[in-house]
Amino acid sequence: MIIPSPGAMLANMRAACPLVHNITNYVVMNSTANALLAAGASPVMAHAPEEVEDMARLASALVINIGTLSAPWIDAMILAGKAAARKKIPIVLDPVGAGATSFRTRTVVRLLDEFPVTVLRGNASEVLSCAGESKTTRGVDSTAGSMEAREAAERVARGLGCVTVITGKVDVVTDGKRTLLVHNGHEMMRRVTGTGCAATALVGAFCGAGSDPLNDSAAAMAYYGLAGERAAVRSAGPGTFWIALLDELALISPSDLDAGSRIE
Amino acid sequence: MIIPSPGAMLANMRAACPLVHNITNYVVMNSTANALLAAGASPVMAHAPEEVEDMARLASALVINIGTLSAPWIDAMILAGKAAARKKIPIVLDPVGAGATSFRTRTVVRLLDEFPVTVLRGNASEVLSCAGESKTTRGVDSTAGSMEAREAAERVARGLGCVTVITGKVDVVTDGKRTLLVHNGHEMMRRVTGTGCAATALVGAFCGAGSDPLNDSAAAMAYYGLAGERAAVRSAGPGTFWIALLDELALISPSDLDAGSRIE
Amino acid sequence: MIIPSPGAMLANMRAACPLVHNITNYVVMNSTANALLAAGASPVMAHAPEEVEDMARLASALVINIGTLSAPWIDAMILAGKAAARKKIPIVLDPVGAGATSFRTRTVVRLLDEFPVTVLRGNASEVLSCAGESKTTRGVDSTAGSMEAREAAERVARGLGCVTVITGKVDVVTDGKRTLLVHNGHEMMRRVTGTGCAATALVGAFCGAGSDPLNDSAAAMAYYGLAGERAAVRSAGPGTFWIALLDELALISPSDLDAGSRIE
Repeated sequence: MIIPSPGAMLANMRAACPLVHNITNYVVMNSTANALLAAGASPVMAHAPEEVEDMARLASALVINIGTLSAPWIDAMILAGKAAARKKIPIVLDPVGAGATSFRTRTVVRLLDEFPVTVLRGNASEVLSCAGESKTTRGVDSTAGSMEAREAAERVARGLGCVTVITGKVDVVTDGKRTLLVHNGHEMMRRVTGTGCAATALVGAFCGAGSDPLNDSAAAMAYYGLAGERAAVRSAGPGTFWIALLDELALISPSDLDAGSRIE
Repeated sequence: MIIPSPGAMLANMRAACPLVHNITNYVVMNSTANALLAAGASPVMAHAPEEVEDMARLASALVINIGTLSAPWIDAMILAGKAAARKKIPIVLDPVGAGATSFRTRTVVRLLDEFPVTVLRGNASEVLSCAGESKTTRGVDSTAGSMEAREAAERVARGLGCVTVITGKVDVVTDGKRTLLVHNGHEMMRRVTGTGCAATALVGAFCGAGSDPLNDSAAAMAYYGLAGERAAVRSAGPGTFWIALLDELALISPSDLDAGSRIE
Repeated sequence: MIIPSPGAMLANMRAACPLVHNITNYVVMNSTANALLAAGASPVMAHAPEEVEDMARLASALVINIGTLSAPWIDAMILAGKAAARKKIPIVLDPVGAGATSFRTRTVVRLLDEFPVTVLRGNASEVLSCAGESKTTRGVDSTAGSMEAREAAERVARGLGCVTVITGKVDVVTDGKRTLLVHNGHEMMRRVTGTGCAATALVGAFCGAGSDPLNDSAAAMAYYGLAGERAAVRSAGPGTFWIALLDELALISPSDLDAGSRIE
């Protein structure tokens, strides 16, 4: 299939400067906001039940991340998700740690029941847990973009009616019918906290400015992975790597992305 | 008017190493603490109602920031504000997002009613919301230090009886009678999260060590803006920019600041 | 006494890649997670009462830090501590700010009463407060590894039946009978927030992979201090220093550590 130009999608996102409403975890609030700002989007972090509906109304996309989940936040996530659904803006869910504790798995299943998710992004184990397949996750090679991961992503996408992004050495992006494989990225990304969460937020930015969640998600992942590749060249370790990655998110031009993206 | 030496104020702040008690948002807790440490102040972050009064008693300044506001924190802000007022230490308020949601606007109005604020720092829209002028914010050019922003800052300062700092391309610092314009700063500061919040905290440090909130605030803004200018010269993008800015906060000497500040 | 090779302990930790469960403060969640990842351990941050027992069961060590304490977190700390004790994994406690407010001092005393702590790490004032000696802390030189700090550490270790680590210019590591002094470190570490908290987390990682908390703690402190020394050489200020320190945590090899550690 012909992939629309990821560079054009990056240019479109920057021109729109979408306001991305994040209800995310304490660990990554700062790094996620900085990734969105560096990319050219506009982040807001807000979690109070008193205002999440207002924020969802102002926003172009909603990103929900359960990384440091606690009960009071679940109500806010549901209020925000329903408001975003009414406004028909994209909702991206990052089921951090689903499958690791029953509290997280239960919560993700409940969130998926309460509002429609546009894109679900996680590693293989997390994504499978969202579809009640946690017992089968042990055997899935989440790092290799294997046929098994690909089939799992497609199955979950069809089951939930959303785009599914399973990240690993190769990222699988699928709506259950069409599947794209994104080969960008660098192993150093696993040595920095919150790199997956930032990927999810960037998917939110691209989807918030775009109209095709499948291609928007693939473009976001290629862009982010390319930033990681370029950052790795000029960094000595995980500290300088993340700082360089933020730089690269700002420095990569649409034509850089078209030249460097590896989507099949 | 003659501006007291900002360099002398920086030297005074470093000599005092004021303990700045921050009740601030999750996104910027780390970056704010690092900005205060780099500058030579001593930060503490504490928000439990059980201890905020104790912290306010130990501190030389209180900084309240509503960036990731939720209801339980409001009580702590009020307790801390009243304790700081009793001790007569400076209180600096950053009304992040006031005007964006009614929850924030309502909360800021309530805080301003519960305890006296020494300095109010925000962008034009936020500051005007604190004075119930949210409907007029759309027309205010917050980026240019325009006459309109200046008049608004002076009006709010007189109305609330505090120093008002409206940040933008030019920062307006006023007590309603005297007005200073600070021309330091760099546009890259808008590409990093929490730069406004760090400015607020540095105002707290300078006020905590000083005795003249108008000039203390202007000196803090000039110092911070100069750090941004110097950081921009040696950075490739928003990642390296923030790291360089922290370095510069430590590296700028009082004589550097006197030479580089542009306050009128 | 003969100190086991710190380099061998680092190699052992990296081979084990221990999952370190942190219940820590908002300010340092990101920097702590990054320090653990850079070192080669695997961090998880989770604080909901609904899941902390599950997390403790998955983890190789539990690290509790009271930096931004509030009442709802205390219950989670106790649940996690008891679960970790049942599983017999090491528990490391960082009593941030104990002695500064009665809320913190009371809480630390309660935590120490509810579950057994393997290692207690703080500065002299904080550690003494854990043993009800807060009134005597004023006279203790926390920066010099003085005889007074050493005796205090040994007294607290005997009283609480744990390893005590008092950090300062020289770190004191003792179980009350055997005492090690770690001379690694750099004064720049005091200009960055969360450096003490990251030290505590690294102690958790070494203890989680090891079997001798006294020597594990000393090796962790030497490793961390050496990273600080190496980072200081290639940094211009506190911003670049912390980023370089994360790099060095990844770059230091076991033989580097054996060559550079200064434990007596």
